[in-house]
Amino acid sequence: MLFFGDTCKPLFSCLSLGSRLSVKLITSTVQTRLFNLEEEGLLKEEDLGQWRRTHYSKEVGPAMADREVVIMGWVSSVRDHGNISFIIIKDMHGEVQVTAKKSEVGEQLFALAKEVKEHTSLGVRGKVRPQEKAPNGAEVVPAEIKAFSVAKKAAPFMTTGKSSPVGIDTRLDLRAVDLRRQQLGSIFRIRQTVVNAIREFLSRQDFIEVSTPKMIATATEGGAALFPIFYYDREAFLAQSPQLYKEQLTMAFESVFEIGPIFRAEPSRTNRHLSEATSVDVERAFADYGDVMALLERMIIHIIDSVKDRNKADLEFLEIAMPALELPFPKYSYSDLIDKLQEAGERIPWGDDISPQVMKSLQDERLNGFYFIVDWPTSTKPFYVKPKADDPKVCESFDLMYGPLEMSSGSTRINRKDQLIERMQKQGLKPDAFDYHLRVFDFGVPPHAGFGMGLERLLMALAKIENIRDATFYPRDIDRLAP
Amino acid sequence: MLFFGDTCKPLFSCLSLGSRLSVKLITSTVQTRLFNLEEEGLLKEEDLGQWRRTHYSKEVGPAMADREVVIMGWVSSVRDHGNISFIIIKDMHGEVQVTAKKSEVGEQLFALAKEVKEHTSLGVRGKVRPQEKAPNGAEVVPAEIKAFSVAKKAAPFMTTGKSSPVGIDTRLDLRAVDLRRQQLGSIFRIRQTVVNAIREFLSRQDFIEVSTPKMIATATEGGAALFPIFYYDREAFLAQSPQLYKEQLTMAFESVFEIGPIFRAEPSRTNRHLSEATSVDVERAFADYGDVMALLERMIIHIIDSVKDRNKADLEFLEIAMPALELPFPKYSYSDLIDKLQEAGERIPWGDDISPQVMKSLQDERLNGFYFIVDWPTSTKPFYVKPKADDPKVCESFDLMYGPLEMSSGSTRINRKDQLIERMQKQGLKPDAFDYHLRVFDFGVPPHAGFGMGLERLLMALAKIENIRDATFYPRDIDRLAP
Repeated sequence: MLFFGDTCKPLFSCLSLGSRLSVKLITSTVQTRLFNLEEEGLLKEEDLGQWRRTHYSKEVGPAMADREVVIMGWVSSVRDHGNISFIIIKDMHGEVQVTAKKSEVGEQLFALAKEVKEHTSLGVRGKVRPQEKAPNGAEVVPAEIKAFSVAKKAAPFMTTGKSSPVGIDTRLDLRAVDLRRQQLGSIFRIRQTVVNAIREFLSRQDFIEVSTPKMIATATEGGAALFPIFYYDREAFLAQSPQLYKEQLTMAFESVFEIGPIFRAEPSRTNRHLSEATSVDVERAFADYGDVMALLERMIIHIIDSVKDRNKADLEFLEIAMPALELPFPKYSYSDLIDKLQEAGERIPWGDDISPQVMKSLQDERLNGFYFIVDWPTSTKPFYVKPKADDPKVCESFDLMYGPLEMSSGSTRINRKDQLIERMQKQGLKPDAFDYHLRVFDFGVPPHAGFGMGLERLLMALAKIENIRDATFYPRDIDRLAP
Repeated sequence: MLFFGDTCKPLFSCLSLGSRLSVKLITSTVQTRLFNLEEEGLLKEEDLGQWRRTHYSKEVGPAMADREVVIMGWVSSVRDHGNISFIIIKDMHGEVQVTAKKSEVGEQLFALAKEVKEHTSLGVRGKVRPQEKAPNGAEVVPAEIKAFSVAKKAAPFMTTGKSSPVGIDTRLDLRAVDLRRQQLGSIFRIRQTVVNAIREFLSRQDFIEVSTPKMIATATEGGAALFPIFYYDREAFLAQSPQLYKEQLTMAFESVFEIGPIFRAEPSRTNRHLSEATSVDVERAFADYGDVMALLERMIIHIIDSVKDRNKADLEFLEIAMPALELPFPKYSYSDLIDKLQEAGERIPWGDDISPQVMKSLQDERLNGFYFIVDWPTSTKPFYVKPKADDPKVCESFDLMYGPLEMSSGSTRINRKDQLIERMQKQGLKPDAFDYHLRVFDFGVPPHAGFGMGLERLLMALAKIENIRDATFYPRDIDRLAP
């Protein structure tokens, strides 16, 4: 259960920055079939010119009967019935049917309509006609069709339907086309709601949004999972988290958050790790881990209420429901869990990490939803996590879980320099490397607490996504650097 | 005028990835004076414990007379008048005065209050008393003072007052303390408004917010200003802009934006360049550069209206006013400008970039505010910028300027594969290296246009910031990697 914020490893290993590396790109060949381009006699590519969309698909309904419209989008399907062609055009809001009957549109336009292939980007000028069987109860009878970019190939997968028809790698190689699938459209509209809901919730709680540097001088968490960069003539690293910066920012701004990229060079090939993820980082002055747990669970509730409210159609399409939640979320202390696991026959000593596999041996239905594991052994958490005053073996820390998946990790932080140095040394870190951070502790760092939450992890849980790669636009992992 | 999006340089130069580099940190010594810690007999550091703030500073007013409050914050100033001490405590919303009279609070608490130094983080429990001369018309008479983190040193600069008292490097070395200055507080509250206003405006225009990868396989813009990374066993780069990704995303989502970090390894030491900046990237399908210019200028108007509305106190403190703007913004074509510059005696051939210095030779007061320079020579712009159909020497491109400073750069993009390959080749780029991008052009990339805007640049213009480093929390430049 080590992912967000709280990893604890020995000092980052010597980086073997070798001599110049060759650029090895992942350019696995996408299986595609060329269209017969000789047929392209009529459907020529034209510029946008003065054409502009007058209506989105969702606006084209029976009430618009006989009105002239210009619609634009890409072709999601074509059905050819001899003397009649149906072209379904998709735009950001939905679908509209274009119906070209030979007897109505004339030979030339009809011939052109028959040339249109899936994925072509086009505009259609025409009249609206009520049509019960068409999406939204109306169709467009074309007067003019303008192709902006003609599809040259058949995609190696369908973009209609719910399930992914081919392996994820084939889809990711052609991600921009893959993203035309309605399933991903729904997922990313839910993502939009989640991100907006987080910002709304935190802004109402007096948080301000910050940006911290992604190029940093030292490993924040200890740990080996770092990407080295050439920073002019120096070595630097990509930030694993905004941890130390967000803590410092509580000195001036008290309550801060950041939604931004984090970078983890984890050589794993699981369905729940990314090399580049989006982290929701929250830090609050004059608060402890109890306060930020309460904040986090109310934030989750607000997110879920927002998705229920704003993504009805998406939830329906994905055939999923948001979990019903009650406050407070269940809390298990690490020590109690270890006891229970040992009672259940697991050979897990106190002080070990608890793996998702091991958790499954506990029969507790509350473990299917959101719950906290609190008060972890101090040795399992990074140097900045505050040990409990009455029992320093244990620290004021939590993980927010959803079933076996870690969503978030947080804690009360140490706000005194001497304690921080002591903890660094115990973990084998050199305080000198953190001078730029430690020096601010001479100037009244307030008590503070916070958490980091993985946005893609949360999306996996809410939208029932099997592979974390589908919770991000262009995933990065040990094997994939492109597109 | 090359900063956002549109740089055009020969293929990135061979990167001399040498052998292991030593970590050279910038740890210039901050000039500080140690407090006499032997005096710390009374003021001990304590944990937050069960203490919680009951009121923010702004809530402590005459109407609260005789009420008990717990306030928290950091000490921004202390005045000692023998038998009376005034401690000004600052929190995220303002200031509150704590008045400790020996005769009122007793010897022990009075002695403790006299020990409090600037920057100490503390909590005060006490009663509110109206006091005309105090901030907000009330003061707190302490019953208990709890120091959470005692300042150990005097900061090398004042955190009160408007102007920066020392060189920017001294401030940046201790940035977290520097950020306690009210001037920076106002700047970053304005930043918050700007970012929120951008999101509001674009969401209302049907844009969705995306995240594109920051670790990429090839240089997006051509150009040499790249940071190389070790990506597992491969070489990769930090993204200079989300350009190609945001373009691809118009295929599925039509209108997208991203507010995120961009990375430029520019070895410059100007007051307007950063190695890591925040870019506002916008891309829209079925639009040309005229459409996105109209969008951008309306966005600027909405931003300015929002700042006027939400940051009155900050504008007053900074003694600045938002510019009065009219739509549309003035537009100068590149060719007309060159003519005018040549008439004004400048020796600038058509095809050259126009430097801020050169622009000053034009006497036109409209050049003090926001204006566009449009229709740049195609050779000065990156490969994805669309040449004009009727005059391919010139392209459908624009820069948004504020006085001599470039705010944003945008264009209509090429949406056809053959044209894109042709332009790549003309600029000495190898299409093979862009295979991951070019392949999507077989599947109907819509006509599209967009822009990138530098958030820090815009903040410089709006908040009259002299050095771009003060428009970001923790700046990065050729000399600075820490804090």
